[in-house]
Amino acid sequence: MRLAELSERSGISTATIKYYLREGLLPPGRRISATTADYDETHLRRLRLVRALIQVGRVSVATAKEVLRHVDDDSLGTAMRLGAALWALPQVPEPDDADEVDEAVATARREVDRLLETLGWSTARDLAAISPDHRSLVAAVASLIRLGYPWDAEMMVPYARLMHQVAVYDLDIVEKHPSEAEKVEVAVAGAILVEPVLRAMHRLAQEEESVRRYGLA
Amino acid sequence: MRLAELSERSGISTATIKYYLREGLLPPGRRISATTADYDETHLRRLRLVRALIQVGRVSVATAKEVLRHVDDDSLGTAMRLGAALWALPQVPEPDDADEVDEAVATARREVDRLLETLGWSTARDLAAISPDHRSLVAAVASLIRLGYPWDAEMMVPYARLMHQVAVYDLDIVEKHPSEAEKVEVAVAGAILVEPVLRAMHRLAQEEESVRRYGLA
Repeated sequence: MRLAELSERSGISTATIKYYLREGLLPPGRRISATTADYDETHLRRLRLVRALIQVGRVSVATAKEVLRHVDDDSLGTAMRLGAALWALPQVPEPDDADEVDEAVATARREVDRLLETLGWSTARDLAAISPDHRSLVAAVASLIRLGYPWDAEMMVPYARLMHQVAVYDLDIVEKHPSEAEKVEVAVAGAILVEPVLRAMHRLAQEEESVRRYGLA
Repeated sequence: MRLAELSERSGISTATIKYYLREGLLPPGRRISATTADYDETHLRRLRLVRALIQVGRVSVATAKEVLRHVDDDSLGTAMRLGAALWALPQVPEPDDADEVDEAVATARREVDRLLETLGWSTARDLAAISPDHRSLVAAVASLIRLGYPWDAEMMVPYARLMHQVAVYDLDIVEKHPSEAEKVEVAVAGAILVEPVLRAMHRLAQEEESVRRYGLA
């Protein structure tokens, strides 16, 4: 398809598409004359992902390029390719007190370790020292402990099991896509796009459950 | 207890506590002389909540006051008091394209309505027109649809059921607290503090599940 059709089908203006091409976020089309190039379904899919990253995820162009570099690195196995792309995404914002290395951080780290042990999440344990998500979890738990909420491994287990079920469903959706490239693309877009859906559902569910327990009066 | 002990036990400096007192975020202590006041456990609890709102949740002083006004409004029933406080919190950030009122928004609204119908979430349905969480969910789903991901009610049901289980567990934790005032305080602090824990657990679970399915190679 030509640029005009790519724009029409993606809903993205030709000016924006040209910008993405210049920035290397979208690979060039197959040149068919000095002024025209031909684009295919892979371009359409890539445009969706770029838009998810930049417009919805508010990721910088530099970060988006880094993420796409991992998405496109087919020298890696699926899990590594996915892991590298997800780790390159902006992390869960940490609380302002995240840099305080205090007793709360030490307690939180111990409880998170016990949590992973209880759950048998061996990958998470093996990668604990380098995973930004492990660091985010410790920071978030430290912040609860610092405020006097007695969060420990036992209290976290039910939440973690539910979030594992969420992740199982995420990957079931990802696996419906035929090619390896599409799977990785959908997983990365999902990491950005599904998060706000889950947060909104969580709050709606809290309202619903609270009215069921206490009534509206 | 005196100001010094309140500071010691809360881990918050006396200067910060005085600032919260001046701003009306913390009710004054019982005055026992021209220069000293006496504080109790309710002050300690309120300090935790203020810190969760301002330092971790990065909520403005004005918004924190609005939230606390609802928390303290014992003319309302538990669900309303909680609901009003939670609605006053900053909402899930909406994607940049949230203001585009297009076909995607109409489709998203229809699918969210079907979702709530399927789940039997009658409160969420009754409050659809005024709930900021309903609006956030429609915006997040519209954003997926706009990018060509075919999200519909059937696809959302398993996620929503899991988030309902999360909310049930949230409220089970809340109910362990004895007084009505404490319940509402813990629920509001939880809305801010538990979200980052869940996001980090979700990402860790995705890594774990992805390595289980595809191996590390």
